[in-house]
Amino acid sequence: MNEAEFISALRAIATSPQARGLADDAAVIEFGSETLVLTHDTMVESVHVLEGQDPADIAWKLVAVNLSDLAGKGAEPVGVLISHMLGSDDHRLVAGLKEVLETYDVLLLGGDTVRGDGARAWGCTAIGRACHSPVPARDGARPGDAIYLGGRIGFAMLGFEALRDDTDDDDSAYRRPVPQLALGRDLAPHVSAMMDISDGLLLDASRIANASSVTLAIERTLVAPLAPEDRLEDAMRWGDDYVLLCTGPAGLDAQFPVTRIGQVTAKGADPVILDGECPEGNLGYTH
Amino acid sequence: MNEAEFISALRAIATSPQARGLADDAAVIEFGSETLVLTHDTMVESVHVLEGQDPADIAWKLVAVNLSDLAGKGAEPVGVLISHMLGSDDHRLVAGLKEVLETYDVLLLGGDTVRGDGARAWGCTAIGRACHSPVPARDGARPGDAIYLGGRIGFAMLGFEALRDDTDDDDSAYRRPVPQLALGRDLAPHVSAMMDISDGLLLDASRIANASSVTLAIERTLVAPLAPEDRLEDAMRWGDDYVLLCTGPAGLDAQFPVTRIGQVTAKGADPVILDGECPEGNLGYTH
Repeated sequence: MNEAEFISALRAIATSPQARGLADDAAVIEFGSETLVLTHDTMVESVHVLEGQDPADIAWKLVAVNLSDLAGKGAEPVGVLISHMLGSDDHRLVAGLKEVLETYDVLLLGGDTVRGDGARAWGCTAIGRACHSPVPARDGARPGDAIYLGGRIGFAMLGFEALRDDTDDDDSAYRRPVPQLALGRDLAPHVSAMMDISDGLLLDASRIANASSVTLAIERTLVAPLAPEDRLEDAMRWGDDYVLLCTGPAGLDAQFPVTRIGQVTAKGADPVILDGECPEGNLGYTH
Repeated sequence: MNEAEFISALRAIATSPQARGLADDAAVIEFGSETLVLTHDTMVESVHVLEGQDPADIAWKLVAVNLSDLAGKGAEPVGVLISHMLGSDDHRLVAGLKEVLETYDVLLLGGDTVRGDGARAWGCTAIGRACHSPVPARDGARPGDAIYLGGRIGFAMLGFEALRDDTDDDDSAYRRPVPQLALGRDLAPHVSAMMDISDGLLLDASRIANASSVTLAIERTLVAPLAPEDRLEDAMRWGDDYVLLCTGPAGLDAQFPVTRIGQVTAKGADPVILDGECPEGNLGYTH
């Protein structure tokens, strides 16, 4: 059973249409008089973070990637629960956690600590309060919508390479991703679909395309200014950038700090096309 | 940094009194017009479940132990998010998950799947709706209160031994714990403190005692009928039973299916005393 089959089996047992989290990056449910948004990400050593990476950076990233999922919903963070496998340098993990929680004014609500052998794993559940109804989802993109990107891509890739190769280049984009919370809340009332890019622009664009039954037509010349020089192809396929990807009416780029990178079209043979053609190779990072 | 130091460091960064989950088995926050209860447990192969155990039982237990935390708060479950490390027999995990979610009418809201080496780990975050305010906590026990137990203890221990030694004895109490959700909701308006026993009667009783600044005086003759014959001492120190432990006024055992096992007294030298003396050896299971 591979990951897709597993998720599909899980979806089959989700008995309610409220169980949107399985098809999306966050679950959205009505609770009391408000809308609760929940998201969970697990990170594994050597898979999501480099072996031997500073636990303060791991803690930052663990929380930030979940807050980024909330950003994709235009939600305001409330708190997090953390699952931590005890190890060495736990004081650095606490330090990083304190930093990220204070930076984004998020409560530490609880969690669990465990012991384990082998690769260490950390989990984070974040809860947030939706600021706009309906909550943006992946399935609302319509032919004619413009496609926008909320920031630069490929810089986490450069950061990863710098950290892996121990060079002096800036590795902060990989170590300390910045969730676009304010932008997400500003965009929520205006977008037809929105998500954060965690697994690569092309792959995550294909997720919006598949959920919305449309094709996303992206243009290289529009993306290029947002990516590192000479690395555009890699940048579009690398994850970890955590910038917002959304679709919506023309002109959003005049109101908000987003860049138009293409156009939604009627569903074609491929979910994503790049300068009119199916992109070559892997669309992004699957893990 | 050991677990206690780590949790204490975490508590130091929890900036709000709402961050009760760190000192308790669940976080309680106001959300919308209602009270949200959140809990997270992570289980690790060979630590919380036996190596090679049926993934259907793992899934059941993963969800049930979180629902048991909600039971301790008198909360009604809403949904869960699951973190799963992909492996073999994932279809069995899905089957067990379906069974436990249907049994307790709980939504599968989302989660994450990851790949990892070494011992596998699974996480579950459960959210619930508090049914009574104030939500029962650990810190409300007062001298003069009676101590009650919501069911039998030590049978998960027998189940563990049966499964480990591959005997024909009943292992269901270990494999398929039953969260006392209805009992927790019934008791919530009447108790002064409540929690579910996950790490052993004596250890969890000491947690109520410490949180409430009292001593819990337990009597062997009152506990003995609830434990396997000849195994009383082990049963009081073994975890995984997931029955409710609470304190409150005399007479609750006439109204509800609970058994009185002792009395809360003013704080003495020890948090828990057994027939008037400090219990010998470990109080319970720490992990």
